[in-house]
Amino acid sequence: MAIDILINGQATNTFPVDDRGLQYGDGLFETIAIKNGKLLCWDSHLERLVISCRRLQIPFTDLIALRQEAELLADKHELAVLKIIITRGQGGRGYTPPANPVPSRILATYPWPEYPTAIREEGVATIICNSRYAINPLLAGMKHLNRLEQVMARMECEELSIREGIMLDINNAVIEGTMSNIFIIKNKQIMTPELSQCGVKGVIRKYIIDTHDVLIKSINIDDLMQSDEIFLCNSIMGVWPVTKLNDKQFKIGALTKLITQLFIKQGYII
Amino acid sequence: MAIDILINGQATNTFPVDDRGLQYGDGLFETIAIKNGKLLCWDSHLERLVISCRRLQIPFTDLIALRQEAELLADKHELAVLKIIITRGQGGRGYTPPANPVPSRILATYPWPEYPTAIREEGVATIICNSRYAINPLLAGMKHLNRLEQVMARMECEELSIREGIMLDINNAVIEGTMSNIFIIKNKQIMTPELSQCGVKGVIRKYIIDTHDVLIKSINIDDLMQSDEIFLCNSIMGVWPVTKLNDKQFKIGALTKLITQLFIKQGYII
Repeated sequence: MAIDILINGQATNTFPVDDRGLQYGDGLFETIAIKNGKLLCWDSHLERLVISCRRLQIPFTDLIALRQEAELLADKHELAVLKIIITRGQGGRGYTPPANPVPSRILATYPWPEYPTAIREEGVATIICNSRYAINPLLAGMKHLNRLEQVMARMECEELSIREGIMLDINNAVIEGTMSNIFIIKNKQIMTPELSQCGVKGVIRKYIIDTHDVLIKSINIDDLMQSDEIFLCNSIMGVWPVTKLNDKQFKIGALTKLITQLFIKQGYII
Repeated sequence: MAIDILINGQATNTFPVDDRGLQYGDGLFETIAIKNGKLLCWDSHLERLVISCRRLQIPFTDLIALRQEAELLADKHELAVLKIIITRGQGGRGYTPPANPVPSRILATYPWPEYPTAIREEGVATIICNSRYAINPLLAGMKHLNRLEQVMARMECEELSIREGIMLDINNAVIEGTMSNIFIIKNKQIMTPELSQCGVKGVIRKYIIDTHDVLIKSINIDDLMQSDEIFLCNSIMGVWPVTKLNDKQFKIGALTKLITQLFIKQGYII
């Protein structure tokens, strides 16, 4: 499915089986939009990657090679997706990392997903998934490779032919979509869940927080259901208005439209 | 580090990079002791593997091939470790599994770890790790590939040169060791944490529960610190008495010795 793959700078599609990415999900990833040969929001993606490596104590420092390889792959494409995986590298049996781990970097380009453009005008129908996020500040916010919760939640969406599902944590707090962050608007106040206990701090979420008056707070199901507008976002899909959540209809409101337009103008959304 | 590797029946040490085991930790594993060419507790390992595949909706059915390959690898060794990984197989970008996933199986043998035999007579010093287990019934009990929590906890142990650490969940319940299950004994009653919210239901844990009068219950730090005996167990290390936990000393008690002896007699522990 990948177009090009570079593993530690080499064009190959195979990987050492003793890499800790496979053995323990011991690593993290980024998913980046390529538009006209450029990597959108590169600095934000790189910042999250570096911060997450530090939190996981993965001594990844090949930032120059990473940048060069990412640009090399991006240069070929008008529109594509770049996925970067950084793992702690090869290791022995057992959870203990080697004394001096040599991290692996995997860069792969993929075709741009064929989301109908109508989604932006007509919105999406969503559900609240049964699969929940565990609560753990140790791993919260990072785009690490331990993603079984989202995989399980995605399977629920697929079974119902729903484009996106909304995930709660085990205490019923609203966290995010299975592949997106969530924003709600009530009385013109934009709000998004605080993600100190679980979830992924997305690059587009950060951009919206940095450029708008956003209240970051704990959001429960009642807040969600009683909001005036709901939208979802990620680096590839951009902004998706929610027009149905379980059995309730929602309108695409003025603020959601404004943010969508801003993104289109800035070139953040294709 | 591996001695022999079989991936879907082929002797190779590389793996397709688009396998979901690497991309999302979308799979599970078993770690099995090989003694005199035999796979110890095979039926229990296989049972857990099959139940976990069902829970994760991984359609793995190649049980005959798995058994044949496991026996082929085991046959060469007087003493070794067999690690089996089952993943959901190859997939595209994104959490959604393919409509008809073809699971991958990886079997690898490793040298027997050189634990000093004195551990069984003298016990081990342990700590309570800062890294916690998240709470999520969705994934509890399974030996799945999302193991960052244990990796982080193991790094704490390594920094302190401690053989094993004890992990709590985020609500301060005692769960298990970073690579072992835990049992405590108080007034001759054997107890072990219930693992419906997190943790791994180990094969040796199951054997002890099945053959002894064990109370499975929620255990807190006070229960742990006030217990008469503590021991840890897994399929490779067998039974390790705990003689120190943080600053407190513990004795190796009669029941711990009895269980250790039973295991040695039954051939469960090398």
